[in-house]
Amino acid sequence: MEVTVPDRRNSILDAAVRVIARAGVRGLRVEELAAEAGVSMALIYYHFGDRAGLLRRTLEHINDRAASYTRKPAGPDPRREVERLLLLELQDTDEVRVNSTAWGELRATAVFDDDLREPLAASTKVWVDEIAAAITRAQRAGSVSGNVRPAEAADLLTALVEGLSDRWLSGSMTLARARRLLRGAIAAELD
Amino acid sequence: MEVTVPDRRNSILDAAVRVIARAGVRGLRVEELAAEAGVSMALIYYHFGDRAGLLRRTLEHINDRAASYTRKPAGPDPRREVERLLLLELQDTDEVRVNSTAWGELRATAVFDDDLREPLAASTKVWVDEIAAAITRAQRAGSVSGNVRPAEAADLLTALVEGLSDRWLSGSMTLARARRLLRGAIAAELD
Repeated sequence: MEVTVPDRRNSILDAAVRVIARAGVRGLRVEELAAEAGVSMALIYYHFGDRAGLLRRTLEHINDRAASYTRKPAGPDPRREVERLLLLELQDTDEVRVNSTAWGELRATAVFDDDLREPLAASTKVWVDEIAAAITRAQRAGSVSGNVRPAEAADLLTALVEGLSDRWLSGSMTLARARRLLRGAIAAELD
Repeated sequence: MEVTVPDRRNSILDAAVRVIARAGVRGLRVEELAAEAGVSMALIYYHFGDRAGLLRRTLEHINDRAASYTRKPAGPDPRREVERLLLLELQDTDEVRVNSTAWGELRATAVFDDDLREPLAASTKVWVDEIAAAITRAQRAGSVSGNVRPAEAADLLTALVEGLSDRWLSGSMTLARARRLLRGAIAAELD
């Protein structure tokens, strides 16, 4: 079977997420990435241009990967769906751990690297908008208070997920506690 | 006037916080720190041993620095005091920006550096315990709901501060919005 260009781009980006999750953004050297992805350095430059271009596409790719574990068929209760979407980011699976570690590392790097700020803000907005849409659906179904502003609640709850995820991944909080606190915050914000 | 040893240690640690906030943990080289602090490299090794020892003491020092802007005389309303203590971490002053940037960077580094995990957890606990104590005082004064569990609310609200602070410092959210969302979350959690 032929390996298509999108497949090859995706497998390079999967490898980039793994390298960042293992060694940080500083550890992402084109040579190491080529070895991890099993491709030539030339092919990486061909697809992504410079390192900044690679990091930008990696941020988008992390969002796409997250979509693969969050975008399952919505359950019948739209309020529960909001909770499900947020809690999926706090799971002890390799997939979530790798994705969240790489996402946190890219966020931390954006504090120092101006080139990453705009793509980070754009990728964050995609996620926040998805949660806001889920809250709006739950509100229309009557299972979220009418006083809640979906855009603000989504901004707040996703920032909380990031804060809790960092505590979990850096060993300051158990995953069980992070999940319990998030559930409580969702109830406090939406009910 | 004689410069005392604690003064000199503190000025080295202040310099370490500034270097980390400017260049990240990776930018913290003993040579650069010596230049920033205006001391010899030998003195840094003398006071802190290796780089891991320096990073551990820097984490504690960030907490001490935060105490200098949070530990002002408590106002008469203990519920407002909880809000004040949390909101002080989201302020556009050089002091808070430098402190929060260095703290976020050390947290991000702890995901990859096992040596930092225990000192990070210990420093985080000091801060969370301080907020939990303020919530307990407000609860005793009757201005926080009796159903609130101070330790859990403090864990949640400080993790939220970290999430919002990262969004602000990485340019994904305005400071005004971060502060407004935090105020709303405090009300939702405590009232």
